[in-house]
Amino acid sequence: MKLRFRYYELHLQHTFTISRSSSNIRPSVIVEIEHDGIIGYGESAPSERYGEDKSTVTEFLKRIDLSQFSDPFELEDILCYIGNLSDGNNSAKAGIDIALHDWIGKKLNLPVWKFLGFNKSKMPSTSYTIGIDSIAMIEQKVKEAESFPILKVKVGVHDDIEIIKSIRNLTDKIIRVDANEGWKSKEEALEKILRLEEQGIELIEQPMPADDLEGTAWLRERVHIPLIADESFRYSKNLRNLHGVFDGINIKLMKCSGMREAVRAIHAAGTLNMKIMIGCMIESSVGISAAAQLSALADYVDLDGNLLIANDPFSGINVLNGKLILSDLPGLGVHSK
Amino acid sequence: MKLRFRYYELHLQHTFTISRSSSNIRPSVIVEIEHDGIIGYGESAPSERYGEDKSTVTEFLKRIDLSQFSDPFELEDILCYIGNLSDGNNSAKAGIDIALHDWIGKKLNLPVWKFLGFNKSKMPSTSYTIGIDSIAMIEQKVKEAESFPILKVKVGVHDDIEIIKSIRNLTDKIIRVDANEGWKSKEEALEKILRLEEQGIELIEQPMPADDLEGTAWLRERVHIPLIADESFRYSKNLRNLHGVFDGINIKLMKCSGMREAVRAIHAAGTLNMKIMIGCMIESSVGISAAAQLSALADYVDLDGNLLIANDPFSGINVLNGKLILSDLPGLGVHSK
Repeated sequence: MKLRFRYYELHLQHTFTISRSSSNIRPSVIVEIEHDGIIGYGESAPSERYGEDKSTVTEFLKRIDLSQFSDPFELEDILCYIGNLSDGNNSAKAGIDIALHDWIGKKLNLPVWKFLGFNKSKMPSTSYTIGIDSIAMIEQKVKEAESFPILKVKVGVHDDIEIIKSIRNLTDKIIRVDANEGWKSKEEALEKILRLEEQGIELIEQPMPADDLEGTAWLRERVHIPLIADESFRYSKNLRNLHGVFDGINIKLMKCSGMREAVRAIHAAGTLNMKIMIGCMIESSVGISAAAQLSALADYVDLDGNLLIANDPFSGINVLNGKLILSDLPGLGVHSK
Repeated sequence: MKLRFRYYELHLQHTFTISRSSSNIRPSVIVEIEHDGIIGYGESAPSERYGEDKSTVTEFLKRIDLSQFSDPFELEDILCYIGNLSDGNNSAKAGIDIALHDWIGKKLNLPVWKFLGFNKSKMPSTSYTIGIDSIAMIEQKVKEAESFPILKVKVGVHDDIEIIKSIRNLTDKIIRVDANEGWKSKEEALEKILRLEEQGIELIEQPMPADDLEGTAWLRERVHIPLIADESFRYSKNLRNLHGVFDGINIKLMKCSGMREAVRAIHAAGTLNMKIMIGCMIESSVGISAAAQLSALADYVDLDGNLLIANDPFSGINVLNGKLILSDLPGLGVHSK
């Protein structure tokens, strides 16, 4: 098996602002695993929030030696080896996991969703993300998102309530609110959520800092809509601590290390009666297609990372009225543009 | 997709006695799913302990209408439909699940373990089961089990300690003890386990009645070896209640409804830091081969159900010095004799 990778800069259509940061360009490393004349594509989209960037990804990928394995079907062993190379580097690990899945699908002449036993038409509609901005720009973005039935709105700043009110004035679509750890006390979070509930929002993602599980549990007793863990949830082993604190988890391949671990987390969360959101970073169509393969198992889908960029280096996944349309081509069904 | 099934009587080599019952013949229904010129084999081995017998299996299978599905790749949807047909009937459901997996492997020309990403050589050795009997017969069975490095001994009767002592006098092999709910008070269980611990046993399966989780939790605080849930654990949804009560679970395809649910339970139990045993009923090589496909993920393997019968209608899985040898043939690798 040959492993190659190359760095891309993903250019955002709008400056993307959340409670803790703002960016115009996001890093992406496209991974290729070649074996038996077939190339599987993967993607690593690192996030500084989890201690990763372009150089941690490329340094990690350079350490990987696949010569000890005979082919990508040895998924469990390969991913175990990769997993044991370090504690973190989960987006780098996801790049390998995704490329292996793409390769297997191509080798078997099956789309990955079919290989995994899913029905591609059972996927919920994705939300479309609206970053923090001026009220005027937010109103413009709501218009741009016309074809999407669900909006996910970033908050965690001083005018959260005004942002949501202005959107609610324009539309009666489902609104999901993502605070990205932006509220610093449980009392502030409670006050904001109770006021946001009056605007008819569906759920709140990550109201409190990731480690403040006590504050989040306190909050959960007092609010009336589901609380979804994003920064508090990285991979399945976290679930033990989140049960009873959050109502659900946002699973992202780049946080959890890939599709196989995502399935593990979906299964474990289901056992604990927790809701599943499948989300993403700013990613190309490679990463988004990979996450979308699993979305038949999701309660909520938030896979618009590729739609927010202007220079997606891949094509293969489409969106129609907010619904992701998975390809019938083998593997992930993505192609380099 | 065509669904057929036929009833078999599996004849035991020795009368098989556990704490609650004794039998010479065990029922098995072999399931066939035919599509596209390929036949996938499954098995339903019903147990009265879980409200199933020959007629509940065959009545359930008659209710299944697969005409609404296009092929066995629609695993998630088919198993969801089957699951919703009734609350129980899990061995009947397992028959379908196993046949679908066998079909998919044959269609893709891949052994199921490879399709699932596992390494067939990573499977732990299986234990060999010694049922309740006279001390003289038990000593004979220990000799018959010479090639197996691990013994699983059934207890839950008046002379439990004598049984284990007599085996320990003959061998220093790993001994696992299965009480099959046979001890009726936590005090009796505690006294027996503490005495059994002196004989160097590895673990205790199901010391207390399935519903007595409070008594089991009390017991767990006082013993020094792992407690494994068998009758207390049926499928992944039970795990929420068993966490903190047992150290691990015995997953059997016939209890949980098949391979896909077994993987779900393995993932969820891992998240909760619980140990995994993969076990079986008295089954032919079809059911045993199916369970063995997943055994790379197990801490303990107890898959000797086919070795205890005299008239296995299938072949395809072998055992060498206690280690199950999975076939490299497509699907489960089993063949009607």
